Amino acid sequence: MQVPSPSMREAASMYGTAVAVFLVILVAALQGSGPPESPFPYRIPLDPEGTLELSWNVSYAHETVYFQLLVRELKAGVLFGMSDRGEMENADLAVLWTNGDRAYFADAWSDQKGQVHLDAQQDYQLLQAQRTPQGLSLLFRRPFSTCDPRDYLIEDGTVHLVYGILEQPFSSLEAINTSGLRTGLQRVQLLKPNISIPALPADVRTMEVRAPDVLIPGQETTYWCYMTELPPDFPRHHIVMYEPIVTVGNEALVHHMEVFQCAAGFQSFPHFSGPCDSKMKPERLNYCRHVLAAWALGAKAFYYPEEAGLAFGGAGSSRFLRLEVHYHNPRKIQGRRDSSGIRLYYTATLRRFDAGIMELGLVYTPVMAIPPQEAAFVLTGYCTDKCTQLALPPSGIHIFASQLHTHLTGRKVVTVLARDGRERAIVNRDDHYSPHFQEIRMLKKIVSVHPGDVLITSCTYNTEDRELATVGGFGILEEMCVNYVHYYPQTQLELCKSAVDAGFLRKYFHLVNSFNSEEVCTCPQASVPQQFASVPWNSFSRSVLQALYGFAPLDMHCNKSSAVRFQGEWDRQPLPKIVSQLQAPAPRCPASQGLSPAGPTVANISGGQG
Amino acid sequence: MQVPSPSMREAASMYGTAVAVFLVILVAALQGSGPPESPFPYRIPLDPEGTLELSWNVSYAHETVYFQLLVRELKAGVLFGMSDRGEMENADLAVLWTNGDRAYFADAWSDQKGQVHLDAQQDYQLLQAQRTPQGLSLLFRRPFSTCDPRDYLIEDGTVHLVYGILEQPFSSLEAINTSGLRTGLQRVQLLKPNISIPALPADVRTMEVRAPDVLIPGQETTYWCYMTELPPDFPRHHIVMYEPIVTVGNEALVHHMEVFQCAAGFQSFPHFSGPCDSKMKPERLNYCRHVLAAWALGAKAFYYPEEAGLAFGGAGSSRFLRLEVHYHNPRKIQGRRDSSGIRLYYTATLRRFDAGIMELGLVYTPVMAIPPQEAAFVLTGYCTDKCTQLALPPSGIHIFASQLHTHLTGRKVVTVLARDGRERAIVNRDDHYSPHFQEIRMLKKIVSVHPGDVLITSCTYNTEDRELATVGGFGILEEMCVNYVHYYPQTQLELCKSAVDAGFLRKYFHLVNSFNSEEVCTCPQASVPQQFASVPWNSFSRSVLQALYGFAPLDMHCNKSSAVRFQGEWDRQPLPKIVSQLQAPAPRCPASQGLSPAGPTVANISGGQG
Repeated sequence: MQVPSPSMREAASMYGTAVAVFLVILVAALQGSGPPESPFPYRIPLDPEGTLELSWNVSYAHETVYFQLLVRELKAGVLFGMSDRGEMENADLAVLWTNGDRAYFADAWSDQKGQVHLDAQQDYQLLQAQRTPQGLSLLFRRPFSTCDPRDYLIEDGTVHLVYGILEQPFSSLEAINTSGLRTGLQRVQLLKPNISIPALPADVRTMEVRAPDVLIPGQETTYWCYMTELPPDFPRHHIVMYEPIVTVGNEALVHHMEVFQCAAGFQSFPHFSGPCDSKMKPERLNYCRHVLAAWALGAKAFYYPEEAGLAFGGAGSSRFLRLEVHYHNPRKIQGRRDSSGIRLYYTATLRRFDAGIMELGLVYTPVMAIPPQEAAFVLTGYCTDKCTQLALPPSGIHIFASQLHTHLTGRKVVTVLARDGRERAIVNRDDHYSPHFQEIRMLKKIVSVHPGDVLITSCTYNTEDRELATVGGFGILEEMCVNYVHYYPQTQLELCKSAVDAGFLRKYFHLVNSFNSEEVCTCPQASVPQQFASVPWNSFSRSVLQALYGFAPLDMHCNKSSAVRFQGEWDRQPLPKIVSQLQAPAPRCPASQGLSPAGPTVANISGGQG
Repeated sequence: MQVPSPSMREAASMYGTAVAVFLVILVAALQGSGPPESPFPYRIPLDPEGTLELSWNVSYAHETVYFQLLVRELKAGVLFGMSDRGEMENADLAVLWTNGDRAYFADAWSDQKGQVHLDAQQDYQLLQAQRTPQGLSLLFRRPFSTCDPRDYLIEDGTVHLVYGILEQPFSSLEAINTSGLRTGLQRVQLLKPNISIPALPADVRTMEVRAPDVLIPGQETTYWCYMTELPPDFPRHHIVMYEPIVTVGNEALVHHMEVFQCAAGFQSFPHFSGPCDSKMKPERLNYCRHVLAAWALGAKAFYYPEEAGLAFGGAGSSRFLRLEVHYHNPRKIQGRRDSSGIRLYYTATLRRFDAGIMELGLVYTPVMAIPPQEAAFVLTGYCTDKCTQLALPPSGIHIFASQLHTHLTGRKVVTVLARDGRERAIVNRDDHYSPHFQEIRMLKKIVSVHPGDVLITSCTYNTEDRELATVGGFGILEEMCVNYVHYYPQTQLELCKSAVDAGFLRKYFHLVNSFNSEEVCTCPQASVPQQFASVPWNSFSRSVLQALYGFAPLDMHCNKSSAVRFQGEWDRQPLPKIVSQLQAPAPRCPASQGLSPAGPTVANISGGQG
């Protein structure tokens, strides 16, 4: 890259004329190697106007992210950084600013009031700044972990990027408060796995499964069911890729979509297009539960690994498909029409393995509930050793992708594999999970699950804005805790989930009654949601519910595709015992610690050509 | 201090002749200021033979401890350091060692197997080493906090010092394992308050209150009661100091001692010398509960502040005193005789304020219990706003000293002052508390308590070596959670403690029954300890007990000296609500971070005169 020599005077005069173009900034303390030779494969606009565009690359060898921030129409500077959930307070920031005379670059942080402060340790390292025809291009890097307690730890999973635009000069870094700026956030998986996208086969064909001109109901939550079918005599194929088709203008309404294949036992299925909970919906549609494709808000195209594809068509499988579209319409917009769906890419040249999708986590039932006003309440669903013993082949299965799913209060999701009572591997973890960014993510490393293994899926919820308990269920204001894992070779096991035993929950309502003067309605005709709604939430009822979920036996759902359980006793199953937990690795501090500049670097501004 | 220049060659030859005297070691990287001008006011032998003697001083301005370690009969080196509870594993160590050629000094740590490793950051700083007639004197310093995750954080309260003696050279630091060494521990309050000892008045007199040649019973726990009396017409005096008198040879048997004054309402009290739980003990002795002096294992002389003294004698107060000696005799030694007691120093020149002692924490009752196999179970006792409102003067009281007390499983104790639901101040905290080191400690800063304030005393217990629940009570295998606070001006309030409401505990036993197949004996004739002994301890019964203690109403003891409660309703009192907790201050990292040597310093050995 071009590194012109600095010329401060020229720049100062340029600033004086309000041209306000930062041309080339070179940090004196630049040390070590430059960016990797490859370009920046990932790119995302940060703000809705596209003023700020971020490209990045990841060096796993150096545990460092290289950022290239393109700033179009630069004014007096820019803030870029990361925070827990996209807030501008308590954020870890790289700041480029000018006092009208000189320009500076610094690693900074914002306190809980949004006030910006210099970091004691400078870990965002400016490598280069260059004028390009598009705008100022800033190149900088940041280690995953810095050991500076003010810094964000870059981990797998969702990262909430934040930005702010400085419209005029600031006398000092400490004079900046994020509350006065134009700011925003963008969610992204920063640490993309370095897996190359498999090439599509030459004979690839496509098929669209779309809702036929649906009038979206003017209600908050609608699950729309639409039945379609494969052409007659459609032979066995492998789906190798699929991507969403979202009707333009409805991007905020289409929450998630799934394509299910119906059970092979039935000769035909009635046609239907309507709400899934409609009384008009034919009963038989409940036998269409074999997932072919799943998409949710924020996801892009999904590619199968080169050795596997998702089988559909041919003898012994149903020609009938059910598309389910979850419309989330909180503003209850009336009269909107939609034809969203999924485009399947498939090949007749079958790959070595059939792939499958399995649902892990919690059953959709109100017995699993989160008290209101909880900052971080954890619910856990199990896939027990008994179920994997029965349903998995002796050589096991290989999970290659995962999609985490909760509704609005979900904040973290993790699935852990345990064997012989010991946690062995993380299947997928997102400590900054957002229900608004549900991607299907390829795993960095394939996780193999053997018969007798246990899969434990835990979701952390924040219900600080709720007044009543949030129960499990299908509604957007109810909750889910699901990990859709994508794996091969395919098995009959489609769903391996749990919930607390209902009898133990009844005991819970009784004991809450005996400890409180207020009565919980425990009469037989009261529904579980009604009973939860009448619990007086105090430290005792909260702690005991948490203790109950960590102790009471399970109602296991170890199900085949046709909503049929595997044979066996699945009620009152013991909770898996975990005797040793995985330890989070101690963050490695970068070797450069203490050698980076201790304060802001003067960014010498000079004229030059990009 | 003398700093001769290094002379390495000479030293090497000296080591070669096995003289093995380390004479003067000067660290090249020595930076900044030397030790403060004052000498080392605190001194303690580390090992039973007195081979290692530690002196130290504290600079609160620099948040640094200066150590002077005297090593008599030095062999091949020495380890000195700190660890959580005195173990040699996971310890933070300063190591002086030789490989037979050169000598080295380094900041190191031991892993969980006792293997010694070099610290990435060198925070023990050697300032000087000097031969003295007594032995090698090492002078080094250490900041309270270092921000090195391997380092011990030096805090208020007990510090467990550890040492190890190197008998022969080691090729490298990593070759040392503490398990093969002669090692030991010594408990000490490292951060002594810098309060000067008040001068005793010129007219000071002494009085000994001693057990009269007691034959210590051959049982584990004995509380010995002995009645004595002041001379007739003994006028009002102020106790200004007291100190223990422990019969030589019985140092390990005398666990703690207290001197109580009897209630003024009675003309006389019977003489008695015998176990406090004896059937022969006159009932009236229960009216001798006003504490005059309290000593426990590890404490030294106790001085009152210059403005206060503890009143005794004179009209309106009883002439009768009860000495209570707690003998702890786990080996059930027979035939040992004891005349231990307390020597009171008193003056007729009354000071401005009468001082008092108040007991905070938990009532001695089995309703407060710790499940077995708990690593850190917390019990909390309250002194409620209702009690302080009733019992304290409008201008409040001033706590100047505190003695924390638990039995064998106690690991941490803290008392916090709360006002209007907000925690305001720590009265006393010991995160490395040991029941074997119960000193009366002067507070660094006097804490004022006003009517309406709440005092919350929490004890953390470790019952990993217990098979049954540990209940509250007087026995050494039962537990206590007490903070004796020393304060002025004196009030009638002698005891402000709580326990969980017994009715709520009964509900707990019932609910544990309903959630378990095993039956807890809840029949009316079963005692609380019996009921606790039959609880099946699992995650649910443990969590619910903890939740119960954090929720159920209190049985308050808001008592005057004569075991009489203040007037009012003290049953089923609400738990104080705390809406904001004190935040632990973020440890300040020393400014020298990153500038200290990154590895061991070669300790150049030379001949010279001390």
